[in-house]
Amino acid sequence: MSQIKEYIAANEPRFLQELFDLIRIPSVSAKSEHKPDMIRCAEHWKSHLLGVGAQKAEVFPTDGNPIVYGEYIIDASLPTILIYAHYDVMPPEPLELWNSEPFEAVVRDGRIWARGADDDKGQSMIQVKGFETALKLGLIRCNVKFIFEGEEEIGSTHLEDFCKKHKEMLKSDVIVVSDTSMISAETPSLTTGLRGLAYWEIEVTGPNRDLHSGHFGGAVANPINELCKLIAQVVDADGRIVIPRFYDDVVPMSDEERNMIAQVPFDENEYKAALDVDELFGEKGYHTLERNSCRPSFDVCGIWGGYTGEGAKTVLPSKAYAKVSCRLVASQDHEKISKMFADYIQSIAPKYIRVQVKPMHGGEAYLCPIDLPAYQAAEKACEVAFGKRPLAVRRGGSIPIIAAFERVLGVKTVLMGFGLESNAIHSPNENMRLDIWRKGIEAAAEFYNYFPER
Amino acid sequence: MSQIKEYIAANEPRFLQELFDLIRIPSVSAKSEHKPDMIRCAEHWKSHLLGVGAQKAEVFPTDGNPIVYGEYIIDASLPTILIYAHYDVMPPEPLELWNSEPFEAVVRDGRIWARGADDDKGQSMIQVKGFETALKLGLIRCNVKFIFEGEEEIGSTHLEDFCKKHKEMLKSDVIVVSDTSMISAETPSLTTGLRGLAYWEIEVTGPNRDLHSGHFGGAVANPINELCKLIAQVVDADGRIVIPRFYDDVVPMSDEERNMIAQVPFDENEYKAALDVDELFGEKGYHTLERNSCRPSFDVCGIWGGYTGEGAKTVLPSKAYAKVSCRLVASQDHEKISKMFADYIQSIAPKYIRVQVKPMHGGEAYLCPIDLPAYQAAEKACEVAFGKRPLAVRRGGSIPIIAAFERVLGVKTVLMGFGLESNAIHSPNENMRLDIWRKGIEAAAEFYNYFPER
Repeated sequence: MSQIKEYIAANEPRFLQELFDLIRIPSVSAKSEHKPDMIRCAEHWKSHLLGVGAQKAEVFPTDGNPIVYGEYIIDASLPTILIYAHYDVMPPEPLELWNSEPFEAVVRDGRIWARGADDDKGQSMIQVKGFETALKLGLIRCNVKFIFEGEEEIGSTHLEDFCKKHKEMLKSDVIVVSDTSMISAETPSLTTGLRGLAYWEIEVTGPNRDLHSGHFGGAVANPINELCKLIAQVVDADGRIVIPRFYDDVVPMSDEERNMIAQVPFDENEYKAALDVDELFGEKGYHTLERNSCRPSFDVCGIWGGYTGEGAKTVLPSKAYAKVSCRLVASQDHEKISKMFADYIQSIAPKYIRVQVKPMHGGEAYLCPIDLPAYQAAEKACEVAFGKRPLAVRRGGSIPIIAAFERVLGVKTVLMGFGLESNAIHSPNENMRLDIWRKGIEAAAEFYNYFPER
Repeated sequence: MSQIKEYIAANEPRFLQELFDLIRIPSVSAKSEHKPDMIRCAEHWKSHLLGVGAQKAEVFPTDGNPIVYGEYIIDASLPTILIYAHYDVMPPEPLELWNSEPFEAVVRDGRIWARGADDDKGQSMIQVKGFETALKLGLIRCNVKFIFEGEEEIGSTHLEDFCKKHKEMLKSDVIVVSDTSMISAETPSLTTGLRGLAYWEIEVTGPNRDLHSGHFGGAVANPINELCKLIAQVVDADGRIVIPRFYDDVVPMSDEERNMIAQVPFDENEYKAALDVDELFGEKGYHTLERNSCRPSFDVCGIWGGYTGEGAKTVLPSKAYAKVSCRLVASQDHEKISKMFADYIQSIAPKYIRVQVKPMHGGEAYLCPIDLPAYQAAEKACEVAFGKRPLAVRRGGSIPIIAAFERVLGVKTVLMGFGLESNAIHSPNENMRLDIWRKGIEAAAEFYNYFPER
């Protein structure tokens, strides 16, 4: 057994306790009532970073949630890695679908169950415990900086400005992030691409008050009917987004990339069975694994309006709302898309309703070159921990700040994530396999054996 | 001043107090938590009917809310009228839009403000106070029966069966109902037609759990997107419902009826301004007043799914729901339409989602002949009270039980309603003009001067 494996095994009960303490703070960034928890969580990380060996750590207030910075500097002339993570989590709703308390982690069936068990408390703890392990074993030969934010799930609103203001402090050669997932436990992978995001709230106003649908139905446009018509006009029967010029900036997939994706183990029947759907639906001409990672998508994330209580109230409501989003790919500009979408919706909106399209947040897609030294170090570290060379694949999720790091700090990011699809992030019963968590820490520690190259 | 007017004026403070006491019982039939209030309200009516002169009154339990029956019998050989009303009201939500408590009636600006001020507590009280007035003044020359139900707003679920079981008790020559509205305070009218109703809840199921829209978006159908597409396929750009054979049984409007409607005072600009809409939308080829009374319509009454809280949660939800309804016209069969709609939705539903269409309730449309003796008595009574001969017009609302009365009891109904569009029934700040309420009671009392014909 390697000394890294030994250290991790010897300290696992404490590592788990530390993760559970972190999870216990309900740092839900989407809800303003959790503001005090955000501050508590940031302070918690500051203490913890100092505890594991950072020479200094600080909580920086922002106009939103605070940002935690920490550093371990050996020598300014050595290469520097910057570990980015986020301490905020998604809302736990719907609560009734959880099998245990979302903020009280439990280990059951070889998995850790809790909101944030994976995204991103479990994964950020992997990096910090990897750092602790490497440090205690004297393996670290580079400077290590940490930046943990509390607004990733709501668009990293204040992090880009923070980076602009603290360029010198955040100076680094590469950024390392554990906030993505692998193809499967048997097929480890590293993420070389992320999708971008644009998110809007649509408000449709019909009459100035809720109306009796008997007295007005048929004579006055119904805002819910009309909202549905607007949404139905975004994607065509072939799964293509019909907004004019929407695909103009999309970099076409190379044959090489498509060939590589074709080699990823994938059983469509299993995939459908796991989701309990009879058929899949997506853009014509693309494979499922291309559709969910290399092609843009349009999803209604939420919709509401009118009477939604018990029974059968007849009403022609005054308002209808939807929260909608597009996942974007390289090199779509999220601000350009955001405007394009709003313009399109206004252009198809009939005169008998009023429509407001409010951009909520967005971010660019990202692509990582596989010849980057830090990418190759991560590849070797994962091979040691998982016993297989990880595949390089693009993934469908978004970490908008990754593109911003490149733009503002001029630094590429290596996405060294250890999630699994079955982890149910953003859903009830989020979880993390304990064996993967362990291997993740091992890989994070092994990274320091390969970076910088000897 | 007529003796009827004098009696009403002398007793108005008590009449109002009696209405307010009735309103104070929150008899919301759509919510099961109000079950005890339904029983209380029925008992309240029983006592009140006995108080105003009914020789007997009784509360009949049903599998739903109780039905109140009362009677004042002079001689079995005389003509009998049956006064129907409902004591249940619509839910008061959204509460934040009310200017005063929905169940604590107040008089302000010459109007009574409360849930039920019009529909149907205000209007049922008009009939009962009209009866009291005529009785005290010795004007009554027919038998009078009362039947008040507590499920009108949820489809009169148990009344039809009740009528079947109590045909002898409910035997009558004509039914009189105050639960409709007039064209305006200046243009009194009697309702000669009502629309029918069919109401469904649609449930769309996509994947078996809420998914991360980054990891699955583009590859798996989103149930909200799909629900919107289904709804968008019900009505075409010309405002016509595209369900096959939907219009097959619709009795076309006669030229005579269309000519009469054209004479109803109507200013489209005022109508739009009152609703604050820039344009109206409805079936091509029909006037607004035809669209909202003589033609069927399709409205989404409520829609919900996904994340609807604060902020911008990205999610590809598992479920989406809508409550939808059609107003029907003579002689569409609501059960036939109900099945037709469910079949249509299933026929257009793609294979990548599962759709359930659950019929919630329904009722037939109704047409009243204007040569009916009781219609003509009502016409004369209104002319005395309002100083103008009321117009005979069809209205867009539904009282499904009216068609059932005809089917089960073999009796026509005279719709002697005193509502106004500005009364905001089914909406926040429901109200009733005090002067109209007064004239309504006068008309209800005058009715006994003309029925039966002398």
